[in-house]
Amino acid sequence: MAGYVVGIDLGGTKIYTVLAAADGEIAAEVEVPTGAEQGYERVLDRIAETVFAVCSRAGVGPGAVSAVGVGAPGPLDPGNGVIHQAPNLGWRKVPFRDDLGARLRFPVYLENDANLGALGEHTYGAGRGSSEMMYVTVSTGVGGGLILRGEIYGGAGGGAGEIGHITVVPRGPRCGCGGRGCLEAVASGTAIARRAQELITRGAGTEILTRAGGEAGAVTAATVAGAAGAGDPEARAILEEAAVHLGTGLAAVVNLLNPDLIVLGGGVMKHNWALLWDRLDLSLREQALEAAYRRVRLAPAALGDRVGGLGAVALALRGIGLRPGG
Amino acid sequence: MAGYVVGIDLGGTKIYTVLAAADGEIAAEVEVPTGAEQGYERVLDRIAETVFAVCSRAGVGPGAVSAVGVGAPGPLDPGNGVIHQAPNLGWRKVPFRDDLGARLRFPVYLENDANLGALGEHTYGAGRGSSEMMYVTVSTGVGGGLILRGEIYGGAGGGAGEIGHITVVPRGPRCGCGGRGCLEAVASGTAIARRAQELITRGAGTEILTRAGGEAGAVTAATVAGAAGAGDPEARAILEEAAVHLGTGLAAVVNLLNPDLIVLGGGVMKHNWALLWDRLDLSLREQALEAAYRRVRLAPAALGDRVGGLGAVALALRGIGLRPGG
Repeated sequence: MAGYVVGIDLGGTKIYTVLAAADGEIAAEVEVPTGAEQGYERVLDRIAETVFAVCSRAGVGPGAVSAVGVGAPGPLDPGNGVIHQAPNLGWRKVPFRDDLGARLRFPVYLENDANLGALGEHTYGAGRGSSEMMYVTVSTGVGGGLILRGEIYGGAGGGAGEIGHITVVPRGPRCGCGGRGCLEAVASGTAIARRAQELITRGAGTEILTRAGGEAGAVTAATVAGAAGAGDPEARAILEEAAVHLGTGLAAVVNLLNPDLIVLGGGVMKHNWALLWDRLDLSLREQALEAAYRRVRLAPAALGDRVGGLGAVALALRGIGLRPGG
Repeated sequence: MAGYVVGIDLGGTKIYTVLAAADGEIAAEVEVPTGAEQGYERVLDRIAETVFAVCSRAGVGPGAVSAVGVGAPGPLDPGNGVIHQAPNLGWRKVPFRDDLGARLRFPVYLENDANLGALGEHTYGAGRGSSEMMYVTVSTGVGGGLILRGEIYGGAGGGAGEIGHITVVPRGPRCGCGGRGCLEAVASGTAIARRAQELITRGAGTEILTRAGGEAGAVTAATVAGAAGAGDPEARAILEEAAVHLGTGLAAVVNLLNPDLIVLGGGVMKHNWALLWDRLDLSLREQALEAAYRRVRLAPAALGDRVGGLGAVALALRGIGLRPGG
């Protein structure tokens, strides 16, 4: 019988690796720098080392590990295990799953990190008991993953869940994707910081500027959150505007998919929940059909930085036919 | 073995009933007025009569019928067969499936008409071979149904697919749902007619007005389509604007669900395909992520007015475990 599985959250700056028992309980975890600048082969070696490190830390023989799940930045193809493009890692078209499998000799399962965020919250976090949910993360960018009928839903090409690129402001600000007025371009941490910097350029935003040590270029979403938390009306207005746009994006999801739950994670949500909540909920209520609005619940993400690793654990467990927590 | 099934498209003004063999081939069809004003019981009787009428017309004994599928205006609950509300029929909370089942003594399956439109095109029409598709109908209103992993997707409450109420113009025109700037409020046949009437009120739209016999109140989407077809630039501009908004709504679907196909039906699409197509495609391309845009195909609906009846046939066949055409 399956003793343990390993979940790995592979990011641009760090690798977070978790050893979990078949019931999902965490036995050990390690975090190391990715070291992407050392190249693909070295990163693979390092990932393999973390797998043996968590085993060693828990006093578990590697022979007790049944499967390894990995969440990686997309776009990637879970079916053949190829990462098509990972700009943060400098990779293009790498047969990641097979290359890691050759090093580890365990079955390896690969998914993109947004989908694993959804699976992590669904299995171990705020999404337990839900069957039709979306996970939305608002941090530097805005991303998302779908769980439909209790399974990750990737659509025809594995790329479903891209709520960050729904147009919410026609002819609005340019987005990194090449579009205009995408949700990400008006409600991400990056967009919030840019709005504050624009304010400062116009000679306003004094409180925000002071908190950034008088340097407009040093303003981040966290600066704005700090000022808003201290009652600064300009900072609050910027966050409220982002919340209204988030509500527009969520309303599209609610009308299209009639989900029972939307889990909201990422730094921007975490640090501003109380402040964003009312506006977001009002904006959603105004734009969603009534029956669909009544059916959906909004909840803060519960797993924090562990979400990717735990999602990868859940992926590995599903890979070998187990479903912790339903 | 299953000999035949019956599919019924129950509308506000007419009942369309189809008898089909287990391979999906149509043996007979009838259409009668709904007569909703005569009340719920009389409509049930009339539906039952059409079932026997198609059998008689095809020379098939009712004993050879294995199941009956019905598409009805929603919101309704396919699970318990209750129609919650059907304003066109004047019904509220009627146990339709059981009441019709008691009259027919066949197993009855119920679905909302937008979802059956999707299933009909998926099984017999433009959606054959697709597994992740959306069906969008643009007529008086804008509606839609989803087929995900080859199955109708209703979401948590059976109400998924409501693309008509995605906000595409923030603070735009009022919609019948109570919202503002919904796709339906700016791209439906009703919205197209209203835009033309506004034009006429401002003293313009001469060609459109002439085609409506000089009466602004008589202008419909068909009037606008006729004028546009004859080259009238004002009529063309109205349709092109609707096409841009449709593109915005479809881009939300494409980014969120990464489908392989969107089937476009309804009178407005049917009568203006060539005219709408370029603008719609351009708007979609500008607003969808590139990989998702490349993955999706847009196709005109193939089944016309038969789509609901054929969807109901497919529902009945699936109810008894058969899947014509995949």
